[in-house]
Amino acid sequence: MKLSEIAKAINGHLIGEDMEVVTIRSLEVAQRQDLTILLDKKHLEKAKNSKAGAIVAAEEGIIAGAMIKVDNPRAVFAKTVELFDKKDTRAGVSKFADIDNATTIGENVFIDSFVKVDAGVVIGDGVRLYSGVSVGKDSVIGKGTVLFSNVSIYHNIEIGENCIFHSGVVVGADGFGFERNKDNEWDKVPQLGKVIIGNNVEIGANTCVDRGCLLDTVICDGVKLDNLVQIGHNSYIGKHSLLSAVCAIAGSTTIGEYNMFAGDVGTVGHLKTGSNVIAMARTGITKDVPDGEMIRGFPARPHKEVVREEMTLRRMVKKKISERGKDKKGE
Amino acid sequence: MKLSEIAKAINGHLIGEDMEVVTIRSLEVAQRQDLTILLDKKHLEKAKNSKAGAIVAAEEGIIAGAMIKVDNPRAVFAKTVELFDKKDTRAGVSKFADIDNATTIGENVFIDSFVKVDAGVVIGDGVRLYSGVSVGKDSVIGKGTVLFSNVSIYHNIEIGENCIFHSGVVVGADGFGFERNKDNEWDKVPQLGKVIIGNNVEIGANTCVDRGCLLDTVICDGVKLDNLVQIGHNSYIGKHSLLSAVCAIAGSTTIGEYNMFAGDVGTVGHLKTGSNVIAMARTGITKDVPDGEMIRGFPARPHKEVVREEMTLRRMVKKKISERGKDKKGE
Amino acid sequence: MKLSEIAKAINGHLIGEDMEVVTIRSLEVAQRQDLTILLDKKHLEKAKNSKAGAIVAAEEGIIAGAMIKVDNPRAVFAKTVELFDKKDTRAGVSKFADIDNATTIGENVFIDSFVKVDAGVVIGDGVRLYSGVSVGKDSVIGKGTVLFSNVSIYHNIEIGENCIFHSGVVVGADGFGFERNKDNEWDKVPQLGKVIIGNNVEIGANTCVDRGCLLDTVICDGVKLDNLVQIGHNSYIGKHSLLSAVCAIAGSTTIGEYNMFAGDVGTVGHLKTGSNVIAMARTGITKDVPDGEMIRGFPARPHKEVVREEMTLRRMVKKKISERGKDKKGE
Repeated sequence: MKLSEIAKAINGHLIGEDMEVVTIRSLEVAQRQDLTILLDKKHLEKAKNSKAGAIVAAEEGIIAGAMIKVDNPRAVFAKTVELFDKKDTRAGVSKFADIDNATTIGENVFIDSFVKVDAGVVIGDGVRLYSGVSVGKDSVIGKGTVLFSNVSIYHNIEIGENCIFHSGVVVGADGFGFERNKDNEWDKVPQLGKVIIGNNVEIGANTCVDRGCLLDTVICDGVKLDNLVQIGHNSYIGKHSLLSAVCAIAGSTTIGEYNMFAGDVGTVGHLKTGSNVIAMARTGITKDVPDGEMIRGFPARPHKEVVREEMTLRRMVKKKISERGKDKKGE
Repeated sequence: MKLSEIAKAINGHLIGEDMEVVTIRSLEVAQRQDLTILLDKKHLEKAKNSKAGAIVAAEEGIIAGAMIKVDNPRAVFAKTVELFDKKDTRAGVSKFADIDNATTIGENVFIDSFVKVDAGVVIGDGVRLYSGVSVGKDSVIGKGTVLFSNVSIYHNIEIGENCIFHSGVVVGADGFGFERNKDNEWDKVPQLGKVIIGNNVEIGANTCVDRGCLLDTVICDGVKLDNLVQIGHNSYIGKHSLLSAVCAIAGSTTIGEYNMFAGDVGTVGHLKTGSNVIAMARTGITKDVPDGEMIRGFPARPHKEVVREEMTLRRMVKKKISERGKDKKGE
Repeated sequence: MKLSEIAKAINGHLIGEDMEVVTIRSLEVAQRQDLTILLDKKHLEKAKNSKAGAIVAAEEGIIAGAMIKVDNPRAVFAKTVELFDKKDTRAGVSKFADIDNATTIGENVFIDSFVKVDAGVVIGDGVRLYSGVSVGKDSVIGKGTVLFSNVSIYHNIEIGENCIFHSGVVVGADGFGFERNKDNEWDKVPQLGKVIIGNNVEIGANTCVDRGCLLDTVICDGVKLDNLVQIGHNSYIGKHSLLSAVCAIAGSTTIGEYNMFAGDVGTVGHLKTGSNVIAMARTGITKDVPDGEMIRGFPARPHKEVVREEMTLRRMVKKKISERGKDKKGE
C-alpha cells in the first residue's frame, strides 16, 4: 500500500517521499518497510527511536522517514489499521457442514466444516460460520455477522447484523434459575426466554450470555463484551456499552447505554445503572447508579468519595502505626 | 394449554373463565394470550398493570382476566413453567457422529453431528449429546443426561443420571499441578484421578471441573454450578450445593452439603466448609467455615461481624473527614 | 509396575519386599495394591493410617508395607507419578478430519475427527489434535504439542514444542480494541498482531490469549496458565511464570519471568512486574512491581506492609466497637 493512498483515505497530508508500506506496527517493533502511528505525545521519545519507515502523527520531524500528518491520530487510528486488515474472503458451504433442509441461507455466506445448523434457522447474506459452530432451532443470524470456531448458539436466539462473536462464546444457555423445594433440594425453573442481540455487537472469547426465564435477555446495538464475561438471564445491556474482561452481570440487571466497565466489574441482580456510567476495575455494584456517575469499590460508590475515604483511612492507619512505633521506642 | 389443566397440575383453583394460554411470561411482558405469575407481593403494582390474560397468584382481583389461585406461588413456580417447556424430542444417531465400536450406547439416545465418542464409553438410555461434544475413553454418562454443544469430557469421567451440562463445559482437564525443579522451572505432575459427578447435577456454560491428581474430584448429587465456575483438582462439592457464576474453588477444597455461594466467591485450597454455609458475593474463603455460617468479605468472616466492623469503620473515616474539613475552615 | 523398578527410576532405596503396584494414589484413598507418597511431614498421621501397600517417604517405619526411601519426596513427586501415567498412543489422521492440502503435517501425529486445519498451517512431529480443534491459516504448531478437544487457534499463531492446551482454550481472538467515534459509538481497531507461544507452555481449560494489535502477544517458555485465565492483547508473560485460575492480565502488560500468581489476580494495563514476583490471591496490580516483591491487596502493595496495616486497622475498629459498647452500657 502506498503512503499517498493511505494519506488520502484518512484525510492526512503526506510529508516526504511516497513509498510502499507492508503493514502498520507499533512504535517499538515497526521496521523500515512498516508504517507506525504516534497516538499520544507521552510516547514521543519512543517514536523518535522508532525504526519505522513512515509515521502517522500530528507533529512533524519525529523520524527520518516519511510522515502522514493528521490533526488527531487517535481519531483516524481505527481507519488506518483497517486499511491493512486482510479479510478472510472464503465463501461457500463446506461439504462437511450439516445444515438442516428447513433453513434459509443467504448469499455469499461462508459455512466451514463441522458446522451444525438446525431446522428453522435463518442465516443472512455474508454471514461467516467457522468450524465447530452450532446454531439451534429457529435462531436468526443477521447479515454480515461472523461466528468464529466453536461458538454455541442455542435455539430461538436473535442475532443482529455485522456482529462478531469470538471462539467459545455461548449464547442462550439456560439462566441459573432454581427454587428450593421442601426437601431443601433445587428444582429447575425452565428458561423459556430468548436472547436478543442487536447490530454491531462484538462478544469476546468464552463469554456467556444466558437466555431469559419468562422474558428475554437483551444486548443492544453496538455493545462490546470482552472475553470471559458473564451476562445473567433477563438482563439488559444498553446500546454502545462496553464491558471489559471477566465482568459478571447478575440476572435481571439493567445496564444503561454508553456505560464503560473496566475489568472484573460485578453486579448483584435486580438493579439498574443509568446512562454514561463508568465503573473502575473490580467495582462491585450493589444498587442503582445514577446517570453519568463514575464509581469504584465494593460496594460501589462515587469514585471521588471512595478515593477520599481510602486516603483518609490510610493516613489514619499509618499514623497509628507510627505512634505505636514511638511508644515502643519510648519504653 | 387450558387454564383448567394448569390449575389441576399445580393444585390451584381457577377463578374466572377457562381459556387457552400460549405460554407463561413475566408480569411486564405478558400479553392477552399469556399466563403470568406474581411471585412476590412487592411486585403487586406491576401485576396490576400487567396485560396478561391470566395470572397465578395468592391474592384475588389483581387483573381483569382469569386467575389460578394458589397458596404459595413460589412453591409452584418451577412446575408451572415446566408445563410450557418444549423439550427437544429428536432421537437417533447422526451419520456425521463418530462413535467407536467398542462403546455401549443405550436406547432412545440423541447423538448429534460431529460428536466424538471414544472406546470404552458407556452412554445410558435417553442421553442427549449435541454437536461438537467429545467423550473420552472409558467415560460413563448416566441415563437422561444432556450435554449441549461443544462440551468436552475427558477420559475416565463418571457422570450420573439426569445431569445437564451447558455448552463449553470442560470436565476432566488436568488439575494445575506442578513442582518447581532445581532449575526453578515447573515439572508437570500428571493428573491420574477421575472426576465423579452425581445425579441431577447442572453445570453452566464454560465451567471447568478438573480431574484429580492422586484422588478424584467429586461433585455430589443435585449440585448446581453456574457459568464460568472453576473447580480445582481433588475438590469435593457436597450434595445440593449451589455455586453462582464465576466462583472459583481451589484444589483440594471440601465444600459441604447445601451450601449456597453468590457470585465470584473464591476459596484457597485445603479447607472445608460445613453444611448450609451461605457466602455473599465476592467472599474470599481462607479457612474452614462451621456449619450454618453466613459469611462475607475477604478474608471471609461471619456476615454480622463484618457488617458491624464496616459500618464502624465508615463512621470513623467520615468523622475524620468532617474534622479535617472543620480544621481547614478554622484556619 | 514393580517397586524395585520405581525405586531405580527415582533414585530411591527399596525397604521391604518387592511387589507389583497398580497405581499411585493419595494417602487417604490408596489401597493394598497401590503405592502412595508422603510429601510433607504434617500428614504423618494420615500416612500412618493409610491402607497403601507401599509408600514413598523420607522416614522409615510409617506403614506396615514396603517403602521407597528418598531424601526429598517432593523432589521426586512429578517423576514418580509420571511412571503411572498411561499416555494416549493413538496415531494417524481421522477420515472425519478436514485438513487443507496446502499444509505441512509432521510424522506420528494424531489428528482426531472433526479437526479443521486451514491452508498454510505447519504441524510438527508427534502433535496431537483432539476432536473439534480448529487451526487457522498459516499457524504453526511445534513438535509434540497437544491440543485437547474444542481448542480454537486463530490464524497466524505460533505455538512452540511440547505444549499442552486444554479443552476450550482460545488463542488469537481479537484483542479488545475500540476507539470512541464522534457519535460516542465504538469503532473497532482491527487486531493485526500474532500470538507467539514458547515451548513447554501449559494452558488450562477455557483460557483465552488474545492476539496483539500492532505488535504480538507473547507467552514465553515454560509458562503455566490455569483455567479461565485472560491474557489481553500485546501482553508479555515472562518465562516460567505461573498464573492460577481466573487471573486476568489486561492488555499491554509485561509479566516478568518466574512470577507466581495465586488465583484471581488481576492487573490494569501498561504496567510491568519484575522477575520472581509473588502475588497472593485476589491481588489487583495497578502499577509496576519490583523484582522479588511479594504483593497483596488492591491496589497491590508489599505483603508485609499490607498485613501490618490490616492488623492495625482491625485493632482500631475493634477498639472503637468495644468503646461504643461501654458507652451504651454507661448510659
